[in-house]
Amino acid sequence: MTEPRDRRALTEGALFTDQYQLTMAQLYWQRGLHERRARFDYFFRHAPDYGEHQAGYCVFAGLGWLLEWMEETRFVAADLERLAEQRTSAGTARFDEGFLRWLSAHGDFSSITMRAVPEGRVVHAHEPLVMVEGPLAMTQILETSLLNHLNYQTLIATKASRVSEAGRGRPVLEFGLRRGPDTGANAGARAALIGGADFTSNVGISHALGLDPKGTHAHSMVQAFMALGGGELEAFRAYASVYPDDCILLVDTVDTLHSGIPHAIAVFEELRAAGHRPAGVRLDSGDLAYLAIRAAQMLDDAGFPEVAIVLSSELDELALWQILSQIDEEAPRYGVDPEALVARLVYGVGTRLITSHGHPALDGVFKLVGIEGADGADVPAIKLSESPAKMPIPGDKVVWRIYDERGLATADLVAATDEPIAPGTPLVLHHPHHDGVSRTLAASEVSEVERLHVDVFHGGAATVEPEDLAAMRARRGEDLERLDPGVRRLVNPHRYHVSLSERVKHLQRDLIQAAKRQNIER
Amino acid sequence: MTEPRDRRALTEGALFTDQYQLTMAQLYWQRGLHERRARFDYFFRHAPDYGEHQAGYCVFAGLGWLLEWMEETRFVAADLERLAEQRTSAGTARFDEGFLRWLSAHGDFSSITMRAVPEGRVVHAHEPLVMVEGPLAMTQILETSLLNHLNYQTLIATKASRVSEAGRGRPVLEFGLRRGPDTGANAGARAALIGGADFTSNVGISHALGLDPKGTHAHSMVQAFMALGGGELEAFRAYASVYPDDCILLVDTVDTLHSGIPHAIAVFEELRAAGHRPAGVRLDSGDLAYLAIRAAQMLDDAGFPEVAIVLSSELDELALWQILSQIDEEAPRYGVDPEALVARLVYGVGTRLITSHGHPALDGVFKLVGIEGADGADVPAIKLSESPAKMPIPGDKVVWRIYDERGLATADLVAATDEPIAPGTPLVLHHPHHDGVSRTLAASEVSEVERLHVDVFHGGAATVEPEDLAAMRARRGEDLERLDPGVRRLVNPHRYHVSLSERVKHLQRDLIQAAKRQNIER
Repeated sequence: MTEPRDRRALTEGALFTDQYQLTMAQLYWQRGLHERRARFDYFFRHAPDYGEHQAGYCVFAGLGWLLEWMEETRFVAADLERLAEQRTSAGTARFDEGFLRWLSAHGDFSSITMRAVPEGRVVHAHEPLVMVEGPLAMTQILETSLLNHLNYQTLIATKASRVSEAGRGRPVLEFGLRRGPDTGANAGARAALIGGADFTSNVGISHALGLDPKGTHAHSMVQAFMALGGGELEAFRAYASVYPDDCILLVDTVDTLHSGIPHAIAVFEELRAAGHRPAGVRLDSGDLAYLAIRAAQMLDDAGFPEVAIVLSSELDELALWQILSQIDEEAPRYGVDPEALVARLVYGVGTRLITSHGHPALDGVFKLVGIEGADGADVPAIKLSESPAKMPIPGDKVVWRIYDERGLATADLVAATDEPIAPGTPLVLHHPHHDGVSRTLAASEVSEVERLHVDVFHGGAATVEPEDLAAMRARRGEDLERLDPGVRRLVNPHRYHVSLSERVKHLQRDLIQAAKRQNIER
Repeated sequence: MTEPRDRRALTEGALFTDQYQLTMAQLYWQRGLHERRARFDYFFRHAPDYGEHQAGYCVFAGLGWLLEWMEETRFVAADLERLAEQRTSAGTARFDEGFLRWLSAHGDFSSITMRAVPEGRVVHAHEPLVMVEGPLAMTQILETSLLNHLNYQTLIATKASRVSEAGRGRPVLEFGLRRGPDTGANAGARAALIGGADFTSNVGISHALGLDPKGTHAHSMVQAFMALGGGELEAFRAYASVYPDDCILLVDTVDTLHSGIPHAIAVFEELRAAGHRPAGVRLDSGDLAYLAIRAAQMLDDAGFPEVAIVLSSELDELALWQILSQIDEEAPRYGVDPEALVARLVYGVGTRLITSHGHPALDGVFKLVGIEGADGADVPAIKLSESPAKMPIPGDKVVWRIYDERGLATADLVAATDEPIAPGTPLVLHHPHHDGVSRTLAASEVSEVERLHVDVFHGGAATVEPEDLAAMRARRGEDLERLDPGVRRLVNPHRYHVSLSERVKHLQRDLIQAAKRQNIER
């Protein structure tokens, strides 16, 4: 068995990849192709579809941690020793000593160049989010880790954005560590914080990211006091005495309306008398909309209209939407102003955020789009699969975001690197996989164009500074403001277009024809 | 920003917990309750419900890594410095220096004792799988990490068991790293290997667990050869020349039936002529059942009846069940023997296994069931929540598995520690949360009884040796053999009973009544 620390080094370094990346890399080495420059694109094919509703956009996340991994990772002696132990079915060494020597000398990401969309940006299906260029063997080995980092964090950032939108901008607290996937829960918390969560209960990641961790207390605290002969009121008093300025009380251990809230109000009165401001109550079971209304009513009557009401328990975007709709409708019957009630809500969102409930994996892929030919020229690559929608966009390219006359994003356009795209000029947008389908934007409909990618990795190091959450969150906020409200809709969103330019469309068509011809000839 | 290595130490050590565990621990410290012995149970309430089908059992996993974490984790200076920086809303230090000193001296798991079901065993809802005893503050702090480790791995081991059962015992390869949750994907691969996967493509975790990593090649390899002026056949030849004894060829890059399989057969003939045994083909798109039949037919006709057919692409237990049913029905029409075809299948299962598609989180909880009173006696604790099904089972206890006259497991029974449970004596089994519902087993129906828990942690160290995969897999295999086939069924399984003994039932009833009285009085 491997010791935990050694295991971490072994499983989270260069061997954090799929076996076939290494066997393919060796094949390229055998054939002298391993250092040919190759281009790979990272993109996803579908925004998450949660069953009864689909995302209209995604929020890109995970890049910062991927770049760190690429900076610090290389094949080390312990990795190479393990690879040297692998045996074929015939009992011979699977990896040639020469190949392992090459990995020992060149098995890092220093010769890889990467352009990417910055984290926090709103992104869409089919457009390349990361474009990688580098020696064929090492770009292939990078694939698995790149997909792992970007797929999961983009998935969770997207869900967090939806939860935040459904919650009408009230604070979202990420509570998922206990139901999250081992240490991956830290990545999930980070992604949630980029995508729409305001804080997390996860202590370690909060400190790593410079945030204050948030929390209330558990049922077990009330139970412990009860078992020791006290009651809920005594438990609340104890909590208030230790945290007089951050006192949020969980009111559903015994009975929310008949015990929890009356006890909380009694303690809040004591806090107020002592010059403190009570912070809130937390509802964690039952009909959260109804209980929130009744809690607001009781707290208002007792003179605590400013005390927050924290909701938790299986929340996600649809649950929040339904709860807020119910509050809008039902609160007036109890003499409670729905707007004032919503303005005091806080959401604790756990399981359904950290697991992206309804759609637990982004289908992001990393596809070969070009390779250096024997003459040193760049040869675009294409894959002829059964479905045209699965085809990557060949060659080197640039992605432009096109803003319309309202200043809203109207399409993302994949163009050749030297193709002139400018505001105030008409544009033809081709469908990425249906030939002959296109739309034309008049000059007046192109108010602004923006390149989405920046250079992020070169010479073995990130070429961008590590970013703080604020920068990534600001990008998301700005992009959402410039997104059509129909695309932001929670259910059945309007489809955002990712299109190909004239030149890229022609290249794609020519390549498909050539590949089909070539294959028939062989 | 935090450097990656520092970040890992900060986010995966003692601060890998929820904030409220620390604030509650401080409250207990303030009140002098922090070292009171407390009992907590870990259990789940529902087997995963994947939407259109629910699991009839779970496979317990994650314990080994939890024990390692508990052995190596304690509050270190860097953790305490961060906690000392936290501020309340009033701007004062949130954590008292005295409390942080206590954490510095006692902030480890050395005074915690743990009994648990061994990994790999078949387990059921409502029974305690782990029973923890220790000082109130540290057991509370342990909660989050314990839940995180056990919930995720048990979830994935359970899914893997279902996939393996659906696949009629043919090899399952775990392929999920690229769609898995950051480093949590390593835990997911481990759990899959415990629960039913035979191998994984994840190189690092394979070596950490002493397995040979498995893989074939990617479409990109064929594409690269095509872009460089060659074709699929040349790509296959190259691969076969480097891996003549492990040659599995991915045949769907161009066209499975008209290009991929004919090219593979051509290369296999060359391999055979050179004295090698071709290993297999992989189908990764299209109608896998139909393509497997046609591939088998073509390979048989070419004299390769022993070559494996690897299926991949969005597989899970229902997909496999459907594919195998279709093969049973359709293969004879093509002159292919369905049994012989199934006997050459291998499954690559990625996204839907590592994310437990359809049910992405186990609802395991960690509940206070007892605490040391002022007089040193053990006081059972209970939680009066809205739903009886949410109530933990109070006090100290033992879980017995009861085998019937067929030698099959018929119920798990939660009993008091000193309650006599023996084979050949009648037993009354009470429903865990419906009063008055019970069934009686006659003496002849109790052929064997077995205690499920073993001591696993004491004095700061695991009291069991680290286990290898074989031991955990053997447990799963034995338990499945002794499980009623109705409970193993993939869809709409028969419900397995977890029951309470007479004495535990009485204790539960008395406590509920006392708690209700006590709360009304206060």
